[in-house]
Amino acid sequence: MTSELDFIRQLQKRCRVRPPVEVGIGDDGAVLKGSDNTSQVVVTDLLLDGVHFDLSSTTPRLAGRKALAVNLSDLAAMACWPTAAFTSIVVPRNLESKQAFLDELYSGMQEFTDRYEFCVAGGDTNSWDGPFAINVTLTGAPIADSPVLRSTARPGDFIVVTGPLGGSLPNHRHLHFEPRLNVARQLCNHLKVHALMDISDGLSIDLTRMMEASGTGAVINAADVPIHQDVPSSISADERLEHAMNDGEDFELLATVASVPDMPLTDLRLHVIGRVTDDAGTIHLTQPNGVPDLLQVKGWQHLNENE
Amino acid sequence: MTSELDFIRQLQKRCRVRPPVEVGIGDDGAVLKGSDNTSQVVVTDLLLDGVHFDLSSTTPRLAGRKALAVNLSDLAAMACWPTAAFTSIVVPRNLESKQAFLDELYSGMQEFTDRYEFCVAGGDTNSWDGPFAINVTLTGAPIADSPVLRSTARPGDFIVVTGPLGGSLPNHRHLHFEPRLNVARQLCNHLKVHALMDISDGLSIDLTRMMEASGTGAVINAADVPIHQDVPSSISADERLEHAMNDGEDFELLATVASVPDMPLTDLRLHVIGRVTDDAGTIHLTQPNGVPDLLQVKGWQHLNENE
Repeated sequence: MTSELDFIRQLQKRCRVRPPVEVGIGDDGAVLKGSDNTSQVVVTDLLLDGVHFDLSSTTPRLAGRKALAVNLSDLAAMACWPTAAFTSIVVPRNLESKQAFLDELYSGMQEFTDRYEFCVAGGDTNSWDGPFAINVTLTGAPIADSPVLRSTARPGDFIVVTGPLGGSLPNHRHLHFEPRLNVARQLCNHLKVHALMDISDGLSIDLTRMMEASGTGAVINAADVPIHQDVPSSISADERLEHAMNDGEDFELLATVASVPDMPLTDLRLHVIGRVTDDAGTIHLTQPNGVPDLLQVKGWQHLNENE
Repeated sequence: MTSELDFIRQLQKRCRVRPPVEVGIGDDGAVLKGSDNTSQVVVTDLLLDGVHFDLSSTTPRLAGRKALAVNLSDLAAMACWPTAAFTSIVVPRNLESKQAFLDELYSGMQEFTDRYEFCVAGGDTNSWDGPFAINVTLTGAPIADSPVLRSTARPGDFIVVTGPLGGSLPNHRHLHFEPRLNVARQLCNHLKVHALMDISDGLSIDLTRMMEASGTGAVINAADVPIHQDVPSSISADERLEHAMNDGEDFELLATVASVPDMPLTDLRLHVIGRVTDDAGTIHLTQPNGVPDLLQVKGWQHLNENE
């Protein structure tokens, strides 16, 4: 199979956008334009037992929670708020107590529908001889005037992340994380956000995608990359940085902003980690000794974008 | 597990609609109200290898075609036209030539995106140890002023279907059918359509659902139910009617209309099969000898509605 990027480019070519679609395959979500010129965003993600969680060790509640959370993270990554959810579910035919399983699954989703005040408005439930799978589609409305894309970073922007990175999977943070909807709202209210996406596959690969989409480059200060406490403190500093750059499943936001705010950055959970440059396609990681290395892109190369 | 209807009622209770959702679980699609008072409809269906098609005997092209067609049928059933598609796909990890498989799959969908002039605007692709599955979500806009629901049939309405029924599965019509978008448009243009849905699980069960949702009853004339040529002519008349009433996967439209048009019905592909009554919950099937029987509800009891 060709690489993820090749596949997405082929799909983009095959699926040329037509009105009312304004932004199609390639960002965290698609943008549709309404007749009154308002924008709507649609995101979708299919989560699979044995890939995104493992039901032999994870409850249905946490599986349902994650299925909704990753989609909410995609909406936050477009600076949007959820308006409705659509859930397609298939359970194994031989699953005992399907009703209890589905009840638990929905209770995991209800945590978010209650908190962010939207509803599950439709779906589809079936059973088969395969494993459990759940697809969630969310519609969303922009927090400010319009969605914020990943393709609109500008040279000179500050690059920020909304929290410490690394170690999500071994410590099960990927099942418990809070999608950064409120943080996205604060960002939009307090800063001029030029580009936005979520960090699902790892900072190095997701930053690379953002810079490629924007036709820009970046310089990142290694010492400023916030490392999560889930990354063992017993390993070397270099190894800890590797985890923060490449582990993935962080679901923090990655943004570029025109300027850094006067208010304390901690109130916004922001960490400034570097600057956008006009050196398209080149990303440097400046080591603590001041030497800039070319970024080694690693990370989770599944197709989890809005292809 | 509880029955489909019980499950949907529980879900409806759990998932109370919140704005901008106006119609949630229970119809062919959900209705969202825009800020300018326009309506948008969202439909979603998850199709599974071994359940909705069998890839050991069906090409990926026909699987992709059906995945889009059943969702387009749901939009036609709400009197809506497609505006965008979102496709989540998972393929078996050990599938040979994934690229060729996906190319074929998308070419099956492209038949419809070209014909009805909309685009695939997003999605998600993955691989796993399970079988092939594809979820399609479509957004749609009303053909007339607003979507037409299944819950708004009125006593006195004529009950019509848009084509002959029965024998779809054994003759593979379910893989080749044309979703009735153009027919829905003609219905909206020429008739006062009170209630609308598609016949996916069989006329008897789908008509029962429409009458329950509308709080009405119906009298159907057995002799007027059009029987598809896919139903063998060698079997008895009673058996042929059974097939037309219960086979499912017809994907014709079932509508109730205020009056029957003056124009030749064949131009609209319409077959008048009975009348709506105010006898809520009671459906009579009038035999050719004039004797009314209570309808025996059979049909495909999977959860394929917009629960």
